[in-house]
Amino acid sequence: MTSTLIDPATLPGWSTDPAARAAARLDRSGFDPGSDPDAVVVAGSVDEVAAVLAHANATGTPVVVRGAGSGLSGGAVAGAGSIVLDLTGLDRIVEISPADEYAVAEAGVITADLDAAAAAHGLRYAPDPASLAISTIGGNIATNAGGLRCAKYGVTRDSVLGLDVVLADGRRIATGRRTVKGVAGYDLTGLFVGSEGTLGVVVGATLRLRPAPVATATLAAWFDGIGAAAAAAAAITAARLQPSVAELLDTACLTAIADAGGPAPRGGAFLLVQTDGFGADAEIDAVRAVVEPLAGSVDVAADPAGAEALLATRRAGLPALERLGRVLVEDVAVPRSRLADAVDAIAAISARSGIRIATMAHAGDGNLHPILVLEPGRELDEHVWACAGEVFTTALRLGGTLTGEHGVGLLKRRWLRDELGDDVVDLQQQLRAVFDPRGVLNPGKAI
Amino acid sequence: MTSTLIDPATLPGWSTDPAARAAARLDRSGFDPGSDPDAVVVAGSVDEVAAVLAHANATGTPVVVRGAGSGLSGGAVAGAGSIVLDLTGLDRIVEISPADEYAVAEAGVITADLDAAAAAHGLRYAPDPASLAISTIGGNIATNAGGLRCAKYGVTRDSVLGLDVVLADGRRIATGRRTVKGVAGYDLTGLFVGSEGTLGVVVGATLRLRPAPVATATLAAWFDGIGAAAAAAAAITAARLQPSVAELLDTACLTAIADAGGPAPRGGAFLLVQTDGFGADAEIDAVRAVVEPLAGSVDVAADPAGAEALLATRRAGLPALERLGRVLVEDVAVPRSRLADAVDAIAAISARSGIRIATMAHAGDGNLHPILVLEPGRELDEHVWACAGEVFTTALRLGGTLTGEHGVGLLKRRWLRDELGDDVVDLQQQLRAVFDPRGVLNPGKAI
Ligand SMILES: Cc1cc2nc3c(=O)[nH]c(=O)nc-3n(C[C@H](O)[C@H](O)[C@H](O)COP(=O)(O)OP(=O)(O)OC[C@H]3O[C@@H](n4cnc5c(N)ncnc54)[C@H](O)[C@@H]3O)c2cc1C
Ligand SMILES: Cc1cc2nc3c(=O)[nH]c(=O)nc-3n(C[C@H](O)[C@H](O)[C@H](O)COP(=O)(O)OP(=O)(O)OC[C@H]3O[C@@H](n4cnc5c(N)ncnc54)[C@H](O)[C@@H]3O)c2cc1C
Repeated sequence: MTSTLIDPATLPGWSTDPAARAAARLDRSGFDPGSDPDAVVVAGSVDEVAAVLAHANATGTPVVVRGAGSGLSGGAVAGAGSIVLDLTGLDRIVEISPADEYAVAEAGVITADLDAAAAAHGLRYAPDPASLAISTIGGNIATNAGGLRCAKYGVTRDSVLGLDVVLADGRRIATGRRTVKGVAGYDLTGLFVGSEGTLGVVVGATLRLRPAPVATATLAAWFDGIGAAAAAAAAITAARLQPSVAELLDTACLTAIADAGGPAPRGGAFLLVQTDGFGADAEIDAVRAVVEPLAGSVDVAADPAGAEALLATRRAGLPALERLGRVLVEDVAVPRSRLADAVDAIAAISARSGIRIATMAHAGDGNLHPILVLEPGRELDEHVWACAGEVFTTALRLGGTLTGEHGVGLLKRRWLRDELGDDVVDLQQQLRAVFDPRGVLNPGKAI
Repeated sequence: MTSTLIDPATLPGWSTDPAARAAARLDRSGFDPGSDPDAVVVAGSVDEVAAVLAHANATGTPVVVRGAGSGLSGGAVAGAGSIVLDLTGLDRIVEISPADEYAVAEAGVITADLDAAAAAHGLRYAPDPASLAISTIGGNIATNAGGLRCAKYGVTRDSVLGLDVVLADGRRIATGRRTVKGVAGYDLTGLFVGSEGTLGVVVGATLRLRPAPVATATLAAWFDGIGAAAAAAAAITAARLQPSVAELLDTACLTAIADAGGPAPRGGAFLLVQTDGFGADAEIDAVRAVVEPLAGSVDVAADPAGAEALLATRRAGLPALERLGRVLVEDVAVPRSRLADAVDAIAAISARSGIRIATMAHAGDGNLHPILVLEPGRELDEHVWACAGEVFTTALRLGGTLTGEHGVGLLKRRWLRDELGDDVVDLQQQLRAVFDPRGVLNPGKAI
């Protein structure tokens, strides 16, 4: 417990400037709280984080922790009455241990910067959200971010060995360890991962690094439609292959890409597969063997330039959709065997609602991103949120989850009890109260 | 909440027979509680588990959950005043989904049986504790068991997608999901994994299955001593290779094996390495290239029979030591770069204490099993526990953990605050109280 409270308004990073407050109001979810936060404080040190929290806890002031604000579920949005604790100033990579294959990094480090630092040692930080050029490690941890490579290498949780956390009352704790294995005590590390700023503030992390693969092989296939593409993804699984990347694009995506002058579609659905490691080439041949009978055409890249050309279609997806209007990037997951059902159901929701929805999916793990595209001038009204709600309930009906990797934030709380049940949500609220008895950390979010 | 309580003494699986009670008193840790439990109840269904817990909770009766009793940390030992809830009767494999690569199993399923059922579909259950022929899935989950393959495929936690749990008061909850990814709510699944029967009773699990590798390659190397063997393990890491298995045996192990008529040692330390997947052969060649300069001799198996011959030395280790007297199998982990330091320090503890200690290590993840061998007739006295204590504090001093995979149980609680700190242990106790406010689940264990 801190004995004397420091007023955060005396910290150098404190600001009540309207521009700073306005800049900290939104994330990338499309949700607007309707007002700006009262203040923003850019923390310059862990001590400052602790001072801000101790003061907020004593005064009952809601604190919204903010990394890059790239979140898609409203977890970092902040309105009147709250202060925003911005961690982007804590951006030091403290240590890279090539011998033990871990890194120690502050929470504000940009994901791609950590990966680049690891690359200097033949290593990499496996979790690669598409936002890696802007997102922070702390934000990735708080949302348990996924990415393309998690089909083989797991999500952020699988790369976090330990955490440095400041609790709601300003106390500092360390969870986990630097060893790969360890089972002393309950897994607090896992509890903080994905907790969306509600259990404590992650100020630093010990992160597992993995060998960069010696080789990567890339295949792209075009299909008549989503049914055949999903069947190909299922055939890869049935052949017991383990791609590092398996990305699926539906017709709506491919049309938008073509309209934007991107690669011309050669079918109604697209599947991009990568394998990696010592057996990358042999494994991509095995992928080809099962995909080819179902596909209209298949290309395997002969070299890195060829691989880039095949990746171009996947990369062009989101920008092509953003050209058409404001986008709402959704995120649900289903058991892999229900992938085609999910894409079909989403297409039906789109037809019914009159809202354009294009779907990209991480086929390797059944994680779909239905992207709602609003015509220029169209507001994010109740009708749009209702359409998103239909997508969520579809995922639940197919045995899946409301959110594969973006988090619950503000947007999905309404459906949380449908997925988890009352007993589980109640238990989770009790856990929350253990860590944050006064309810100052991101109130109203996540659970 | 259950409205009417069922007296567990009326259940068909209830017994106060002295033989049954005596059989449920010990696990494999060597710790003796000094008395038998009051009763044993072999649960015949999840409803019976719920009935036992509701009654125990209402009456304040301590419940010790028991799988196979193969645990090595005293987690399942039970004395007077407690009842043992035996889950070995819940042994159904409920579902194997080859398309979604998961299995649903009851807690009492034997680990090897699940793996065999998966094998029928070209899949496997990756976590392979050496006890897999006897241990239960529930026990593996409750201890977060590791195994040889976890160097590449992770520990039990990494294969658990969701759990069916009966809470202390008899309520049933489901955690997690059947999808590979999902971030709705806090990670209760991870919290239950490794909780050693203190947060709830795991009655069933949805477990991730992985493709069985198309090929496996095996290499065995002998070295002058542990220094060179540890250097070879470090060289494999430094070359950014990713063996599926990397097992190290010290001189004391090799001597015992030779004395028992097993494979003759060709040096003072032994390293067994396996690689797997499409690139298994190419990767084992890369392993050979870095190991050879440090080794006295190196063999690579040409076929499965050759691999079995190389594995024989590793397999012979524990039986050879058990021949010499009662064994205490310890379990600590250090950052991989401290492996040689740890083995050296343990040898010094052995010399100082006069207790024979042989060390086997999962070199791929820095997890050591120092095995204390007591001469025939020697009791497990204070001196022996003090020697084990020195091993634990050595691991902490080297930046490691008290337990890599066996759990805290009864034996390691004394050192837990040294590793975790008071704030973390206090938080964990508060979490425990959320799940088990009356303290009936395995009191006095784990945290
Ligand atoms: C173009 C684009 C592509 C994306 N692609 C992906 C993708 O592939 N996979 C994926 O998973 N996500 C993706 N996202 C979503 C987003 O980038 C991730 O959720 C990311 O992890 C958020 O990081 P951030 O630093 O921006 O966090 P923020 O948005 O600032 O915060 C996110 C949540 O975490 C909390 N938080 C932030 N930092 C901390 C901390 N240090 N301690 C405690 N709580 C904290 C916040 O309170 C909030 O609840 C994408 C977003 C965009 C805009
Ligand atoms: C020869 C030998 C080799 C071994 N090798 C390994 C190894 O390689 N790796 C490794 O990690 N361990 C190993 N062990 C240790 C042991 O086998 C593991 O800890 C195993 O996971 C225990 O399973 P069990 O079913 O025997 O559990 P038990 O010993 O019966 O119980 C262990 C703990 O889990 C709790 N528990 C059991 N079932 C449940 C349930 N359903 N719900 C809640 N709590 C429960 C118990 O209360 C206790 O705290 C080995 C043991 C032996 C004897």
